[in-house]
Amino acid sequence: MNYDSDNIFAKILRGEIPAERVYEDADTLVFMDIMPRADGHVLVIPKTPARNMLDASPQQLAACIATVQKIAHALLRAFDAEGITTQQFNEAAGGQEVFHLHYHVMPRHDGVRMRAPGTMEKPEVLKANAERIRAALS
Amino acid sequence: MNYDSDNIFAKILRGEIPAERVYEDADTLVFMDIMPRADGHVLVIPKTPARNMLDASPQQLAACIATVQKIAHALLRAFDAEGITTQQFNEAAGGQEVFHLHYHVMPRHDGVRMRAPGTMEKPEVLKANAERIRAALS
Repeated sequence: MNYDSDNIFAKILRGEIPAERVYEDADTLVFMDIMPRADGHVLVIPKTPARNMLDASPQQLAACIATVQKIAHALLRAFDAEGITTQQFNEAAGGQEVFHLHYHVMPRHDGVRMRAPGTMEKPEVLKANAERIRAALS
Repeated sequence: MNYDSDNIFAKILRGEIPAERVYEDADTLVFMDIMPRADGHVLVIPKTPARNMLDASPQQLAACIATVQKIAHALLRAFDAEGITTQQFNEAAGGQEVFHLHYHVMPRHDGVRMRAPGTMEKPEVLKANAERIRAALS
Protein backbone atom coordinates (compact mmCIF):
# COMPACT_ATOMS: atom_id res chain seq x y z
CA MET A 1 0.00 0.00 0.00
CA ASN A 2 1.26 3.45 -0.87
CA TYR A 3 1.19 6.74 0.98
CA ASP A 4 -1.25 9.26 -0.51
CA SER A 5 0.07 12.75 0.20
CA ASP A 6 -3.43 14.19 -0.34
CA ASN A 7 -4.77 12.66 2.89
CA ILE A 8 -6.22 15.21 5.31
CA PHE A 9 -3.50 14.81 7.95
CA ALA A 10 -0.83 15.52 5.32
CA LYS A 11 -2.82 18.67 4.48
CA ILE A 12 -2.91 19.62 8.18
CA LEU A 13 0.87 19.08 8.38
CA ARG A 14 1.36 21.36 5.37
CA GLY A 15 -0.98 23.97 6.88
CA GLU A 16 -3.40 23.66 3.97
CA ILE A 17 -6.35 22.94 6.26
CA PRO A 18 -6.80 24.04 9.86
CA ALA A 19 -6.67 21.93 13.01
CA GLU A 20 -6.75 22.65 16.73
CA ARG A 21 -3.08 21.97 17.36
CA VAL A 22 -2.06 21.34 20.96
CA TYR A 23 1.57 20.19 20.78
CA GLU A 24 4.41 19.60 18.38
CA ASP A 25 8.06 18.66 18.47
CA ALA A 26 10.60 17.91 15.75
CA ASP A 27 9.03 14.57 14.87
CA THR A 28 5.35 14.64 15.89
CA LEU A 29 2.20 16.77 15.89
CA VAL A 30 -0.83 16.52 18.19
CA PHE A 31 -4.25 17.99 17.40
CA MET A 32 -7.88 17.58 18.41
CA ASP A 33 -9.96 14.80 16.82
CA ILE A 34 -12.95 16.57 15.27
CA MET A 35 -15.18 13.58 16.09
CA PRO A 36 -14.09 12.99 19.70
CA ARG A 37 -15.17 9.87 21.57
CA ALA A 38 -14.35 11.66 24.85
CA ASP A 39 -13.71 15.31 25.70
CA GLY A 40 -10.02 15.91 25.06
CA HIS A 41 -9.64 13.15 22.44
CA VAL A 42 -6.47 13.95 20.48
CA LEU A 43 -4.50 12.42 17.62
CA VAL A 44 -0.72 11.96 17.61
CA ILE A 45 0.91 11.76 14.17
CA PRO A 46 4.46 11.67 12.80
CA LYS A 47 5.49 14.68 10.72
CA THR A 48 6.95 12.41 8.05
CA PRO A 49 4.91 10.13 5.75
CA ALA A 50 3.72 6.74 6.99
CA ARG A 51 0.49 5.14 5.85
CA ASN A 52 0.04 3.43 9.22
CA MET A 53 1.92 1.38 11.81
CA LEU A 54 2.65 -1.38 9.30
CA ASP A 55 5.02 0.69 7.13
CA ALA A 56 6.32 3.09 9.80
CA SER A 57 10.02 3.21 10.67
CA PRO A 58 11.24 2.31 14.17
CA GLN A 59 12.09 6.00 14.59
CA GLN A 60 8.59 7.14 13.65
CA LEU A 61 7.01 4.61 16.01
CA ALA A 62 9.30 5.51 18.92
CA ALA A 63 8.70 9.24 18.40
CA CYS A 64 4.93 8.78 18.27
CA ILE A 65 4.76 6.57 21.34
CA ALA A 66 6.90 9.02 23.34
CA THR A 67 4.51 11.83 22.39
CA VAL A 68 1.50 9.63 23.21
CA GLN A 69 2.92 9.23 26.72
CA LYS A 70 3.63 12.95 27.12
CA ILE A 71 0.20 14.00 25.92
CA ALA A 72 -1.49 11.31 28.05
CA HIS A 73 -0.08 12.88 31.21
CA ALA A 74 -1.27 16.30 30.02
CA LEU A 75 -4.77 14.89 29.38
CA LEU A 76 -4.91 13.45 32.92
CA ARG A 77 -4.12 16.91 34.31
CA ALA A 78 -6.25 18.91 31.88
CA PHE A 79 -9.43 16.89 32.38
CA ASP A 80 -8.82 15.55 35.89
CA ALA A 81 -9.05 12.15 34.22
CA GLU A 82 -8.63 8.76 35.86
CA GLY A 83 -7.44 6.77 32.87
CA ILE A 84 -6.33 6.89 29.26
CA THR A 85 -7.46 4.79 26.32
CA THR A 86 -5.30 4.57 23.20
CA GLN A 87 -6.26 3.04 19.86
CA GLN A 88 -4.41 2.78 16.57
CA PHE A 89 -6.01 1.43 13.39
CA ASN A 90 -4.35 -0.03 10.29
CA GLU A 91 -6.08 -0.32 6.91
CA ALA A 92 -9.85 -0.01 6.42
CA ALA A 93 -10.49 -3.51 7.81
CA GLY A 94 -8.62 -2.44 10.96
CA GLY A 95 -10.74 0.70 11.38
CA GLN A 96 -8.47 3.23 9.65
CA GLU A 97 -10.19 6.13 7.88
CA VAL A 98 -7.32 8.56 7.25
CA PHE A 99 -4.22 6.96 5.77
CA HIS A 100 -1.50 8.76 7.69
CA LEU A 101 -0.30 6.95 10.85
CA HIS A 102 -2.17 8.24 13.91
CA TYR A 103 -2.68 7.28 17.53
CA HIS A 104 -5.96 8.09 19.26
CA VAL A 105 -5.44 9.22 22.88
CA MET A 106 -8.54 9.72 25.04
CA PRO A 107 -8.87 10.83 28.66
CA ARG A 108 -11.33 8.64 30.57
CA HIS A 109 -13.36 8.87 33.75
CA ASP A 110 -14.72 6.04 35.89
CA GLY A 111 -18.17 4.98 34.74
CA VAL A 112 -18.18 7.17 31.62
CA ARG A 113 -18.33 5.19 28.39
CA MET A 114 -16.68 6.38 25.21
CA ARG A 115 -19.16 8.03 22.87
CA ALA A 116 -20.05 6.28 19.61
CA PRO A 117 -17.79 7.33 16.74
CA GLY A 118 -18.82 9.68 13.98
CA THR A 119 -20.32 12.77 15.61
CA MET A 120 -18.66 16.09 14.77
CA GLU A 121 -17.88 18.31 17.77
CA LYS A 122 -18.61 22.05 17.82
CA PRO A 123 -15.50 24.11 16.96
CA GLU A 124 -15.82 26.19 20.16
CA VAL A 125 -15.78 23.03 22.29
CA LEU A 126 -12.70 21.69 20.49
CA LYS A 127 -11.03 25.07 20.97
CA ALA A 128 -11.80 25.18 24.68
CA ASN A 129 -10.55 21.62 25.20
CA ALA A 130 -7.39 22.39 23.22
CA GLU A 131 -6.77 25.38 25.49
CA ARG A 132 -7.00 23.14 28.56
CA ILE A 133 -4.45 20.72 27.09
CA ARG A 134 -2.06 23.52 26.09
CA ALA A 135 -2.32 24.94 29.61
CA ALA A 136 -1.59 21.52 31.13
CA LEU A 137 1.50 21.19 28.93
CA SER A 138 2.93 24.58 29.83
CA MET B 1 0.20 4.04 41.29
CA ASN B 2 2.52 1.16 42.07
CA TYR B 3 3.41 -1.99 40.19
CA ASP B 4 1.95 -5.14 41.77
CA SER B 5 4.25 -8.06 40.98
CA ASP B 6 1.41 -10.52 41.66
CA ASN B 7 -0.48 -9.48 38.50
CA ILE B 8 -1.16 -12.37 36.12
CA PHE B 9 1.17 -11.17 33.37
CA ALA B 10 4.04 -11.00 35.88
CA LYS B 11 3.18 -14.60 36.77
CA ILE B 12 3.22 -15.56 33.09
CA LEU B 13 6.63 -13.88 32.72
CA ARG B 14 7.92 -15.89 35.69
CA GLY B 15 6.46 -19.11 34.28
CA GLU B 16 4.17 -19.54 37.29
CA ILE B 17 1.07 -19.77 35.12
CA PRO B 18 0.81 -20.98 31.53
CA ALA B 19 0.15 -18.94 28.40
CA GLU B 20 0.15 -19.67 24.67
CA ARG B 21 3.40 -17.90 23.90
CA VAL B 22 4.03 -17.00 20.26
CA TYR B 23 7.13 -14.79 20.30
CA GLU B 24 9.73 -13.32 22.59
CA ASP B 25 12.91 -11.32 22.35
CA ALA B 26 15.21 -9.79 24.96
CA ASP B 27 12.71 -7.10 25.95
CA THR B 28 9.20 -8.31 25.06
CA LEU B 29 6.87 -11.32 25.19
CA VAL B 30 3.82 -12.03 23.00
CA PHE B 31 1.07 -14.48 23.93
CA MET B 32 -2.56 -15.23 23.07
CA ASP B 33 -5.31 -13.21 24.76
CA ILE B 34 -7.54 -15.83 26.43
CA MET B 35 -10.62 -13.67 25.71
CA PRO B 36 -9.93 -12.79 22.06
CA ARG B 37 -12.02 -10.19 20.28
CA ALA B 38 -10.81 -11.64 16.95
CA ASP B 39 -9.10 -14.92 16.05
CA GLY B 40 -5.38 -14.34 16.54
CA HIS B 41 -5.77 -11.57 19.15
CA VAL B 42 -2.42 -11.34 20.98
CA LEU B 43 -0.92 -9.26 23.77
CA VAL B 44 2.53 -7.66 23.62
CA ILE B 45 4.17 -6.95 26.99
CA PRO B 46 7.56 -5.75 28.21
CA LYS B 47 9.56 -8.29 30.24
CA THR B 48 10.35 -5.66 32.85
CA PRO B 49 7.82 -4.10 35.25
CA ALA B 50 5.59 -1.25 34.09
CA ARG B 51 2.06 -0.73 35.36
CA ASN B 52 0.96 0.74 32.03
CA MET B 53 2.00 3.26 29.38
CA LEU B 54 1.94 6.13 31.88
CA ASP B 55 4.92 4.90 33.94
CA ALA B 56 6.79 3.02 31.20
CA SER B 57 10.31 4.04 30.18
CA PRO B 58 11.05 5.24 26.64
CA GLN B 59 12.98 2.00 26.15
CA GLN B 60 10.04 -0.16 27.22
CA LEU B 61 7.67 1.74 24.95
CA ALA B 62 10.00 1.57 21.94
CA ALA B 63 10.61 -2.16 22.46
CA CYS B 64 6.88 -2.89 22.76
CA ILE B 65 5.90 -0.86 19.71
CA ALA B 66 8.62 -2.54 17.60
CA THR B 67 7.26 -5.95 18.63
CA VAL B 68 3.69 -4.79 17.95
CA GLN B 69 4.75 -4.00 14.39
CA LYS B 70 6.58 -7.31 13.93
CA ILE B 71 3.69 -9.37 15.26
CA ALA B 72 1.16 -7.34 13.23
CA HIS B 73 2.86 -8.42 10.01
CA ALA B 74 2.84 -12.03 11.22
CA LEU B 75 -0.89 -11.78 12.01
CA LEU B 76 -1.62 -10.48 8.50
CA ARG B 77 0.15 -13.51 7.03
CA ALA B 78 -1.16 -16.06 9.55
CA PHE B 79 -4.83 -15.12 9.19
CA ASP B 80 -4.81 -13.70 5.65
CA ALA B 81 -6.01 -10.52 7.36
CA GLU B 82 -6.74 -7.17 5.72
CA GLY B 83 -6.10 -4.91 8.67
CA ILE B 84 -4.84 -4.65 12.24
CA THR B 85 -6.45 -2.98 15.24
CA THR B 86 -4.35 -2.09 18.28
CA GLN B 87 -5.59 -0.92 21.66
CA GLN B 88 -3.78 -0.06 24.88
CA PHE B 89 -5.59 0.74 28.13
CA ASN B 90 -4.34 2.66 31.16
CA GLU B 91 -5.93 2.44 34.61
CA ALA B 92 -9.38 0.99 35.26
CA ALA B 93 -11.14 4.09 33.91
CA GLY B 94 -9.19 3.64 30.69
CA GLY B 95 -10.22 -0.01 30.34
CA GLN B 96 -7.20 -1.70 31.95
CA GLU B 97 -7.85 -4.98 33.79
CA VAL B 98 -4.34 -6.41 34.27
CA PHE B 99 -1.85 -3.91 35.63
CA HIS B 100 1.21 -4.78 33.58
CA LEU B 101 1.65 -2.72 30.40
CA HIS B 102 0.15 -4.54 27.40
CA TYR B 103 -0.78 -3.82 23.81
CA HIS B 104 -3.72 -5.61 22.22
CA VAL B 105 -3.02 -6.55 18.58
CA MET B 106 -5.89 -7.99 16.53
CA PRO B 107 -6.02 -9.18 12.92
CA ARG B 108 -9.11 -7.87 11.13
CA HIS B 109 -11.10 -8.73 8.03
CA ASP B 110 -13.37 -6.47 5.97
CA GLY B 111 -16.93 -6.54 7.26
CA VAL B 112 -16.13 -8.60 10.38
CA ARG B 113 -16.74 -6.74 13.63
CA MET B 114 -14.67 -7.34 16.73
CA ARG B 115 -16.41 -9.68 19.16
CA ALA B 116 -17.67 -8.27 22.45
CA PRO B 117 -15.07 -8.54 25.22
CA GLY B 118 -15.22 -11.08 28.01
CA THR B 119 -15.75 -14.50 26.43
CA MET B 120 -13.10 -17.12 27.17
CA GLU B 121 -11.80 -19.02 24.13
CA LYS B 122 -11.34 -22.81 24.07
CA PRO B 123 -7.71 -23.80 24.79
CA GLU B 124 -7.49 -25.88 21.60
CA VAL B 125 -8.53 -22.89 19.48
CA LEU B 126 -5.94 -20.65 21.18
CA LYS B 127 -3.32 -23.35 20.61
CA ALA B 128 -4.19 -23.72 16.91
CA ASN B 129 -4.12 -19.94 16.36
CA ALA B 130 -0.80 -19.69 18.22
CA GLU B 131 0.63 -22.35 15.90
CA ARG B 132 -0.41 -20.31 12.87
CA ILE B 133 1.32 -17.22 14.24
CA ARG B 134 4.50 -19.11 15.11
CA ALA B 135 4.55 -20.58 11.60
CA ALA B 136 4.10 -17.09 10.08
CA LEU B 137 7.03 -15.82 12.15
CA SER B 138 9.39 -18.63 11.16
